[in-house]
Amino acid sequence: MREPAYTLTAGPTGGWPSVEAAMGAPLVYDYDPVFLERFARTERKVAEIFRTSGDVVMMQGEAVLGLEAAARGLVRPGMTALNLVSGVYAKWFGLWLAEYGANLVEVEVPYDEAVPVEAVAKALEDHPETAMVSVVHSETPSGILNPLREIAEVVRAHGALMVVDAVSSLAGEELDVDGWGIDLCVAGPQKCLAGPPGMSLIAVGERAWEAIRDNPGAPRGSFLSLLDWKERWIDGGRTAFPYTPSIVDVAGVEAACDVVLGMGLDASIAMHRRAARATRAGVTGMGLGLWARDAAAATSCVTAVRSPDGVGVVDALTHIRSRYGVMLSPGYGELKERLIRLGHMGPAADSLTPVVALSALGRGMADLGVEVDIGDGLEAALAELAEAA
Amino acid sequence: MREPAYTLTAGPTGGWPSVEAAMGAPLVYDYDPVFLERFARTERKVAEIFRTSGDVVMMQGEAVLGLEAAARGLVRPGMTALNLVSGVYAKWFGLWLAEYGANLVEVEVPYDEAVPVEAVAKALEDHPETAMVSVVHSETPSGILNPLREIAEVVRAHGALMVVDAVSSLAGEELDVDGWGIDLCVAGPQKCLAGPPGMSLIAVGERAWEAIRDNPGAPRGSFLSLLDWKERWIDGGRTAFPYTPSIVDVAGVEAACDVVLGMGLDASIAMHRRAARATRAGVTGMGLGLWARDAAAATSCVTAVRSPDGVGVVDALTHIRSRYGVMLSPGYGELKERLIRLGHMGPAADSLTPVVALSALGRGMADLGVEVDIGDGLEAALAELAEAA
Amino acid sequence: MREPAYTLTAGPTGGWPSVEAAMGAPLVYDYDPVFLERFARTERKVAEIFRTSGDVVMMQGEAVLGLEAAARGLVRPGMTALNLVSGVYAKWFGLWLAEYGANLVEVEVPYDEAVPVEAVAKALEDHPETAMVSVVHSETPSGILNPLREIAEVVRAHGALMVVDAVSSLAGEELDVDGWGIDLCVAGPQKCLAGPPGMSLIAVGERAWEAIRDNPGAPRGSFLSLLDWKERWIDGGRTAFPYTPSIVDVAGVEAACDVVLGMGLDASIAMHRRAARATRAGVTGMGLGLWARDAAAATSCVTAVRSPDGVGVVDALTHIRSRYGVMLSPGYGELKERLIRLGHMGPAADSLTPVVALSALGRGMADLGVEVDIGDGLEAALAELAEAA
Amino acid sequence: MREPAYTLTAGPTGGWPSVEAAMGAPLVYDYDPVFLERFARTERKVAEIFRTSGDVVMMQGEAVLGLEAAARGLVRPGMTALNLVSGVYAKWFGLWLAEYGANLVEVEVPYDEAVPVEAVAKALEDHPETAMVSVVHSETPSGILNPLREIAEVVRAHGALMVVDAVSSLAGEELDVDGWGIDLCVAGPQKCLAGPPGMSLIAVGERAWEAIRDNPGAPRGSFLSLLDWKERWIDGGRTAFPYTPSIVDVAGVEAACDVVLGMGLDASIAMHRRAARATRAGVTGMGLGLWARDAAAATSCVTAVRSPDGVGVVDALTHIRSRYGVMLSPGYGELKERLIRLGHMGPAADSLTPVVALSALGRGMADLGVEVDIGDGLEAALAELAEAA
Repeated sequence: MREPAYTLTAGPTGGWPSVEAAMGAPLVYDYDPVFLERFARTERKVAEIFRTSGDVVMMQGEAVLGLEAAARGLVRPGMTALNLVSGVYAKWFGLWLAEYGANLVEVEVPYDEAVPVEAVAKALEDHPETAMVSVVHSETPSGILNPLREIAEVVRAHGALMVVDAVSSLAGEELDVDGWGIDLCVAGPQKCLAGPPGMSLIAVGERAWEAIRDNPGAPRGSFLSLLDWKERWIDGGRTAFPYTPSIVDVAGVEAACDVVLGMGLDASIAMHRRAARATRAGVTGMGLGLWARDAAAATSCVTAVRSPDGVGVVDALTHIRSRYGVMLSPGYGELKERLIRLGHMGPAADSLTPVVALSALGRGMADLGVEVDIGDGLEAALAELAEAA
Repeated sequence: MREPAYTLTAGPTGGWPSVEAAMGAPLVYDYDPVFLERFARTERKVAEIFRTSGDVVMMQGEAVLGLEAAARGLVRPGMTALNLVSGVYAKWFGLWLAEYGANLVEVEVPYDEAVPVEAVAKALEDHPETAMVSVVHSETPSGILNPLREIAEVVRAHGALMVVDAVSSLAGEELDVDGWGIDLCVAGPQKCLAGPPGMSLIAVGERAWEAIRDNPGAPRGSFLSLLDWKERWIDGGRTAFPYTPSIVDVAGVEAACDVVLGMGLDASIAMHRRAARATRAGVTGMGLGLWARDAAAATSCVTAVRSPDGVGVVDALTHIRSRYGVMLSPGYGELKERLIRLGHMGPAADSLTPVVALSALGRGMADLGVEVDIGDGLEAALAELAEAA
Repeated sequence: MREPAYTLTAGPTGGWPSVEAAMGAPLVYDYDPVFLERFARTERKVAEIFRTSGDVVMMQGEAVLGLEAAARGLVRPGMTALNLVSGVYAKWFGLWLAEYGANLVEVEVPYDEAVPVEAVAKALEDHPETAMVSVVHSETPSGILNPLREIAEVVRAHGALMVVDAVSSLAGEELDVDGWGIDLCVAGPQKCLAGPPGMSLIAVGERAWEAIRDNPGAPRGSFLSLLDWKERWIDGGRTAFPYTPSIVDVAGVEAACDVVLGMGLDASIAMHRRAARATRAGVTGMGLGLWARDAAAATSCVTAVRSPDGVGVVDALTHIRSRYGVMLSPGYGELKERLIRLGHMGPAADSLTPVVALSALGRGMADLGVEVDIGDGLEAALAELAEAA
Repeated sequence: MREPAYTLTAGPTGGWPSVEAAMGAPLVYDYDPVFLERFARTERKVAEIFRTSGDVVMMQGEAVLGLEAAARGLVRPGMTALNLVSGVYAKWFGLWLAEYGANLVEVEVPYDEAVPVEAVAKALEDHPETAMVSVVHSETPSGILNPLREIAEVVRAHGALMVVDAVSSLAGEELDVDGWGIDLCVAGPQKCLAGPPGMSLIAVGERAWEAIRDNPGAPRGSFLSLLDWKERWIDGGRTAFPYTPSIVDVAGVEAACDVVLGMGLDASIAMHRRAARATRAGVTGMGLGLWARDAAAATSCVTAVRSPDGVGVVDALTHIRSRYGVMLSPGYGELKERLIRLGHMGPAADSLTPVVALSALGRGMADLGVEVDIGDGLEAALAELAEAA
């Protein structure tokens, strides 16, 4: 099969040309002076996008690594951990919390809704001993966005550590690590940042470092150790790595940061929001249904569409990929056959590309006999794209 | 500072142009049909280079990840593990074995010598309950090669599991996973294979899978889990990944395999051996000293040179890098100031490139006042390079 | 200004990723054995796309160079040359014919029509002494396609040399140099072939070589000389170039040929035709007007749209480029402000990309106050794209 | 055969990584605003390297095109043109001068010597009617450098137009177009500038433009026309090209200029001179002979070595290429079998790369039975490379 003409998925998403070019550049030694400088410089750029003046740890391995590292570093047996669940990824995180010995408390909502801030407040009231609260900012599997700013405010008032999975939202949604008082925030480069899949970008504040250092079970001498990076690289003066970093991924992440900072972080977020609005307008304009019950709970990263009755999602996507060269995503896990996800992250959120995803969806559905008003949907989407951000 | 003109280090080493091109290619979705096929195809190519018909697990994260995953997967508290130590990396591996509860037995030799096969036999005799034996094939930190084939024979006769760190030797030294009865073998792409740093390539045989499956402590639902890959990806029919693989690294690894298989695995090994012979001839021809006491114990990946009296290694390498644009490696860990390491892996082993490393070393030493016969050394090196492999 | 997200112009068109990768590969010496082989191999691939078993000359310099070289090589003062004119490029070619001394006869039609084969027959009857007939297969400036097969048949019957400008049609329209009896055919790589702008690809048959050799005024020892290439490179056994070829462009042309031959030449032509049909359906579906009076006279390379009253073309395209990141082409020469041209060549003809051009056109027009039925147009275009080729 | 590991030839030379990356970037439309700006910006960078505030014309086609364009533009039948000949390229230029009707006067010296400035003065005295003087700055075919500054001074005093072929010397030798009063200067990007082969870079001063404009035979409406570029592009406000430029080559040329200007033009020249000194020291240190009778007449671009008795040059280079992966150049034209040329332009002049060329030469000769002191040669070369520039 030919390479796809368009990768408009839930991620990894296609990269900007400058990101791809950076990854094709000559490999250098990790202790070459140009690489040591590049690594430190990239940390600062990532920190700027996190809006933090604290530490950024860049570990090699997709964001699941960073999430596992965070959980292992923070959880002490018997501590109470409040986990907010509006999707699959949060559910998984809870499994780790429990496995590592936390007394797990969960606020769970149906996966087409966001976690209400009131429920968080209530849970903290019910469990005043809560030591940490974890939440997924943007649930890519189902396209749900949680009201992070409000949640963080409540958590900060309570005093628990705020731990955030911002894997897909970094650079695509408002996120202010320092301003909102987030203690530990894990992001991935392969979503709205539109870099390569392969790193965990982790903002770690002082309160989180303290908690990890105080945790006798926090990994050391392990690929999963945040402390190894803190002690050897960061506090060691940024001259020695605990593990060999990926020359290629770091180059890609820096280039991706340069794109975002070049257009401006606000502009990047606005671009993602506009693409999401256009996509939602397109979907409903065609007569198809959105998964999110409420547009306010829909993330700007990916739009989840309810699959029409009688349509096999995997078969439909296979048809669209082979006939039109456009790669979309099915649902994830148990939702696999119930959702079609249109990604609009990075280049997929730029220009008129959301129209390509919608055209593929609409025409693909029509090919399968679904009645859709393709023209109305595309026209509605273009009207949104024509708006100033 | 300008980018280096030559990266002739202990790794990451510079990549072949086709490897760099592959990593600059458009990013695709991990579930795109072209990527699913590429991943499976790359596994088979890596298996061919391992000379195994068994499973290959390709995890994202430099080889330390794979080594930790292997140790965590295999070690059960109280089992006796024999660890053969002729260098820093083996020493570290032993720390993991002990941490995870093994009854650790070590055969240790000075770090400028290889582990004698007789000592292995003796240790197994003394500890007949030994359940696994671990060895580093090629100790990059000090350039020492262990007699793996002979060691494996003894271990196989005994019946213990044979676990090998072949991180730097894959594609550069003789290695026959199936033929020699190696049960688990971890390699990295960024050494003789000359791909990107960022993956662990792990050959796992049936006996190793059994041991891991029988180990209640073997990680599951973890980035460090071999079983997650086995159950979800391999045994699941290669349609679902447990974690998002790095699109870029996999492309780089496949391209690196293609270079090796294109020239022929035997030719690749011969190229590395010739480069190592030439480098050793150059070093001694100049009047400098090799770290390895015996050429038979010197690996083909990297040549460790004893730093001349009165020369600060880091300062010398900084001078060579800034004045000549050539990046060499210092020693590692406690040997940092005692060794200069010339890498000859992948492109650095090809053509006349070993002469560049030697010229940088020789001229750099001369600049610092060391008396060296540069011409004699280079001439001796070229005589070796002129030999048929 | 940021780089364009989409280049959907009359050419140079965006290249396939493999073409761009080929051009980023290491430069080699033109007499390196790998380059000598690559040059000869590329000639054969170009010949396959021309459908000729005759010579292909690949000169460095965009196709205007090849056209000038052909005119200078063929024209002898006093010879009668019949030039068929349905657009700007043909008109220019006539200027050269006259300048070099030909007795110029022209059949000219309005630039929104094709040259009727009957008019050619009539002209040849009126001018039986005609020694050569020249025609532009696809007039990119106005999107007009001439009935080359039929014209060539008439010319062959008459006996005059048939000279064709197929700059933009190669790989996008039916073209059979040998089968149709074309004596000299000039193409460019940067149009439907979707390679780099920078070469002239020229099929030269035996009758054309004879005419050039017999022409005392044909250039020799000149960058414009076809004979230099014939004598030094082709007849010299393909070991010596008369001029240094562009390493980069040749690599790009070979990669572009590989894409076309990989999908199949027929499939490539079908892809361009479908994209053109979809684009025309989209334009008229929106309520805008096509330049070509008749779809049969519309080329598959580019669709020329009559600019709506009151719309400044250059201003409109500037708006579309800066607001949506999509680059379209205005008209050419005197038609600059009267036409908007949507390119669908190479990648721009693939997948759903024609929808992007149409969306940019439609939404751009709407932004400027033109009444357009964007949805109807896009839906009509998608219906065409859904058809089997 | 595998790709070469090293291209150390008389050019095209290998490019810097940033040049290759620039050429692999996405193709854009020539009228895209980013390209219009890039083209104009590149002109200014080239002008800076020419050290001129006058016009720079960038034509597509290797430098022979620019030289032919210059000759055709300047020569009027009957004018007296003094051509200074110390090599093959100058000889060829004279053929054009004569063909276009000049009354040709030549000062010719053996091809292993430079043209003495006294001979130029004498010729101008003998032919006071001389309207133009032409000289090749650096004769790549034989590695000879002419004393351009002194020659230009004499010519300027006389008043004739000074026309210079600086194809290979730009960025590698002192050259000051404005300061030395050069009226027209043609350079190529694929030599010391280390860009792609495929363009002519031409500095044209006011006096040259006048002469061309006054020449009724100067080409117009031709790919060989300097005036087309002047009138349409330069004087037209840099908004319209007479011919489609090569997107790729312009990107490569800009990147190459950036390398030179990034290190500093003086540093670039110093780098080339040092590499040339090292190469000459290496050649003579090995006991082989230089072609240039006098080091002052040896160019910094390429070092021509007299082939030892009994050695077939082409065979020797074939052996070196296939055995060591190093591509060197033979002599050119009638000198093909008498010279081996080691290129040291761009990256080939950087770092310790001259040692690779010398090692290939020395070891290659030794393989063929020639007695050479390889070690002495390489040591001598390294001693030069160790000198501050």
